[in-house]
Amino acid sequence: MNIEEVTRIQTSFDAQTMMATFDARIIDIQRGSVRIEAPISPGARQQQGFGHAGLTFSIGDSAAGYAALTMLPLHQEVVTAEIKINLLAPARGEKLISVGKVVKPGKRLCVVTAEVYAVEQGVQTLIALLQGTMVPVTA
Amino acid sequence: MNIEEVTRIQTSFDAQTMMATFDARIIDIQRGSVRIEAPISPGARQQQGFGHAGLTFSIGDSAAGYAALTMLPLHQEVVTAEIKINLLAPARGEKLISVGKVVKPGKRLCVVTAEVYAVEQGVQTLIALLQGTMVPVTA
Amino acid sequence: MNIEEVTRIQTSFDAQTMMATFDARIIDIQRGSVRIEAPISPGARQQQGFGHAGLTFSIGDSAAGYAALTMLPLHQEVVTAEIKINLLAPARGEKLISVGKVVKPGKRLCVVTAEVYAVEQGVQTLIALLQGTMVPVTA
Amino acid sequence: MNIEEVTRIQTSFDAQTMMATFDARIIDIQRGSVRIEAPISPGARQQQGFGHAGLTFSIGDSAAGYAALTMLPLHQEVVTAEIKINLLAPARGEKLISVGKVVKPGKRLCVVTAEVYAVEQGVQTLIALLQGTMVPVTA
Repeated sequence: MNIEEVTRIQTSFDAQTMMATFDARIIDIQRGSVRIEAPISPGARQQQGFGHAGLTFSIGDSAAGYAALTMLPLHQEVVTAEIKINLLAPARGEKLISVGKVVKPGKRLCVVTAEVYAVEQGVQTLIALLQGTMVPVTA
Repeated sequence: MNIEEVTRIQTSFDAQTMMATFDARIIDIQRGSVRIEAPISPGARQQQGFGHAGLTFSIGDSAAGYAALTMLPLHQEVVTAEIKINLLAPARGEKLISVGKVVKPGKRLCVVTAEVYAVEQGVQTLIALLQGTMVPVTA
Repeated sequence: MNIEEVTRIQTSFDAQTMMATFDARIIDIQRGSVRIEAPISPGARQQQGFGHAGLTFSIGDSAAGYAALTMLPLHQEVVTAEIKINLLAPARGEKLISVGKVVKPGKRLCVVTAEVYAVEQGVQTLIALLQGTMVPVTA
Repeated sequence: MNIEEVTRIQTSFDAQTMMATFDARIIDIQRGSVRIEAPISPGARQQQGFGHAGLTFSIGDSAAGYAALTMLPLHQEVVTAEIKINLLAPARGEKLISVGKVVKPGKRLCVVTAEVYAVEQGVQTLIALLQGTMVPVTA
């Protein structure tokens, strides 16, 4: 990944006000793989006090989408066509880390997955698995 | 729905700090169907300025989950086991409305759907369709 | 639907040898909606003697795909990009009927749903719900 | 895996007449992972002559289900609650191989994935990815 390629992903991410609301940040960008981290903050919880599925979904979807974007020409963007999430365990702890990956790149459709982990006192637990389709669009 | 049944859903909803972060509120509760509304606020946008898929997902998932809860005994809660979202159009306008419905209630699993609409100057557009599984748990 | 439009769907269906293996047939074609019927035959069962999920999936997917095709120009075909099935009840009885519907037509992607019913001594039970994405391709 | 554990899986598989219709067979059983193979036979094709999505789905779902069963006590069976398939490439070649895996075992729900490969003249291509939920039931 050259600096231009990394920059366009960071710039797109920074334009998502939702990511700022969640205090989320990109922690790694590789071709075909992106990692995002967000705290399980007081304002992002469900009724039992665990992280909300909407937070888990949001950073899983974003990591998967940006993983797709690493495979595309600089003038393109991606949008999520569809994505499915299986929730495996409560989002318990201080923060979440999502790892998005490209399974099958393509000009029309890009199939992606993401894993989301909760980190509690340094122990990482897989809490969600996502599988979906990103569509390249001209920005 | 008697007042006790409505109250336990509102109480559970109010305990989700994420719903307050999104300024979301329940606008209708029927047996087997719940409606939730949330503004497309400045802090809930994606990189093109439309509502974030995480917002759409969150209120779709909540409406579906609470629809499931209307079918269950008062001492139970539900958690999302899995849910899939197809995004049909950008979340453009002032607010989103989600309508969650129970397709198949059950003691072990409850199959649900949700539709999410964006409202722009009074015009309602279907922007997402969700299909998933809720699991009853003892609160 | 004119005769040319109906014919191209029947022709495509007849080219699917799997549909013949399942003894499946199209029983209704409307713009945006297609119905397919198949017996729960001795060779299409799972380990408990009910109809196999693969049969339910196959006719649900086909009904959804051909529903999408009713919305497209005559020179196009569709392929399934992705589809999700929730199985609600055992496939018990003499035959299955699937009803595919278009939720959102499109040149690049077409979002579809299907319901699958089992028919036992004339009583119809909803046994599966599908939600997916069809992609138009040039035949 | 002891012989009793392997036998109950083979016995359950043999009771699925659909697997015989597809000429499918189990080629490997490990704890948490099962492989199934089936020819792309003349009677299992879609309209363009490739293997039908229903075949891909069926052996993917079966491999995932039996992978779940390897983690369960001998008196239990599993049924598919839901599963999603992303189709990545045409099912081209002589045969398909599916590899089912358990992501998260559980007494109430078991989250699984499966990969399906097409084999053409010895070259293996990933053609589908499945992610779903199996439910243990008492046989």
